[in-house]
Amino acid sequence: MGRKLQVAVVLFDGVSALDATAPYECLQLLPNTEVVFVSHTVGAHKDALGYLSLNSTHTFHEVSLPDIVIVPGGLGIKKLLKDLVVLDWLQQVNDTTLFTASVGSGSLLLAEAGLLTGLSATTHWAALEALEKQGVKVAKGRVVQQGKIITAAGPTSGIEMGILLASLATNKDFAKSVELILEYDPQPPFNTGSTTKAGAELTAKATTMLYANELKASNL
Amino acid sequence: MGRKLQVAVVLFDGVSALDATAPYECLQLLPNTEVVFVSHTVGAHKDALGYLSLNSTHTFHEVSLPDIVIVPGGLGIKKLLKDLVVLDWLQQVNDTTLFTASVGSGSLLLAEAGLLTGLSATTHWAALEALEKQGVKVAKGRVVQQGKIITAAGPTSGIEMGILLASLATNKDFAKSVELILEYDPQPPFNTGSTTKAGAELTAKATTMLYANELKASNL
Repeated sequence: MGRKLQVAVVLFDGVSALDATAPYECLQLLPNTEVVFVSHTVGAHKDALGYLSLNSTHTFHEVSLPDIVIVPGGLGIKKLLKDLVVLDWLQQVNDTTLFTASVGSGSLLLAEAGLLTGLSATTHWAALEALEKQGVKVAKGRVVQQGKIITAAGPTSGIEMGILLASLATNKDFAKSVELILEYDPQPPFNTGSTTKAGAELTAKATTMLYANELKASNL
Repeated sequence: MGRKLQVAVVLFDGVSALDATAPYECLQLLPNTEVVFVSHTVGAHKDALGYLSLNSTHTFHEVSLPDIVIVPGGLGIKKLLKDLVVLDWLQQVNDTTLFTASVGSGSLLLAEAGLLTGLSATTHWAALEALEKQGVKVAKGRVVQQGKIITAAGPTSGIEMGILLASLATNKDFAKSVELILEYDPQPPFNTGSTTKAGAELTAKATTMLYANELKASNL
């Protein structure tokens, strides 16, 4: 059977729970695979608004050869952009990963680590401008693959990225089963899931909600 | 402003992380709201395969008047069906909730607590037969609302249920913003997200995968 495939999901304070759990729920289904949750210290990491905490199982030091790395986004990503330990770790593990991937604002961290240089990528719509300012060519699409670097847009696109990764790591038939097990037969209630579909007014409202959360989160 | 709206998400060992986090990610956005994660004991609860653990913040004893209750599913739900403390708690809080809701096999617990008597409901496709055996009329649809009782199908339908609950607890405009913030503009890669679309052969394969996970989980 050989060595197990190792999937490492990065955790941090202020993570978006869904950014982390959506691809995880797909990848935990892969055969002969183990998933580790990695951060500076083992234990609880609160999400953006602090209601939910997810537990990491390993420190960065303990995970040196992951096959697949997932960097979720969330309001806490800003702090990580200056974190040399995390940036170094990402650069090092990326040398040997099969795939290095992000959801939402997680791509800002990949960019900061220099992993998106010369590549197209995406992020949550509210972070597209920030990603462009980092010199990254912003691409259309919920999931953008450039060789082994894969970036996804807002939290729910992490489902699609997880299914894609399942396909790349095994085969299409397996990934079809993953889509079925997740019962991913979506029926979005309002058809307002993209800024284009939502329009300028609704996008402005949603942006205000996001800023309010950022403020709440900074007080936690 | 009055009392905050309280959302209670039930946690337990063997929970499906996505069943819990998908509606949570929607409901945490509600204005003047707090979310609590409730279980027998405060602290870590491992998900089905044991890679990820989510932390509960309150015991059942500490949460007596939640406005919205979410019961996620997962391989661990079976054990809860015989848990009189949980069943009693569900019956009691349901007297005063605005909405009592489940994702995936969480509806089996609502049924066991007698909350689905005379109602139509849904669950993960792999648990539909079990729900019928409990005497519940199985309904078509990813999200089934019967007054204040709302049940959702497999994990990703929890997103749609969260958006629906956001709409019911506030208004449609707010819920549209939630859909946009979650960037729920889905593009399922293989169009195999329902048993009808997947067909019998693929459904049989996915069922085998689920049984294998159940076996793995029982050894943890």
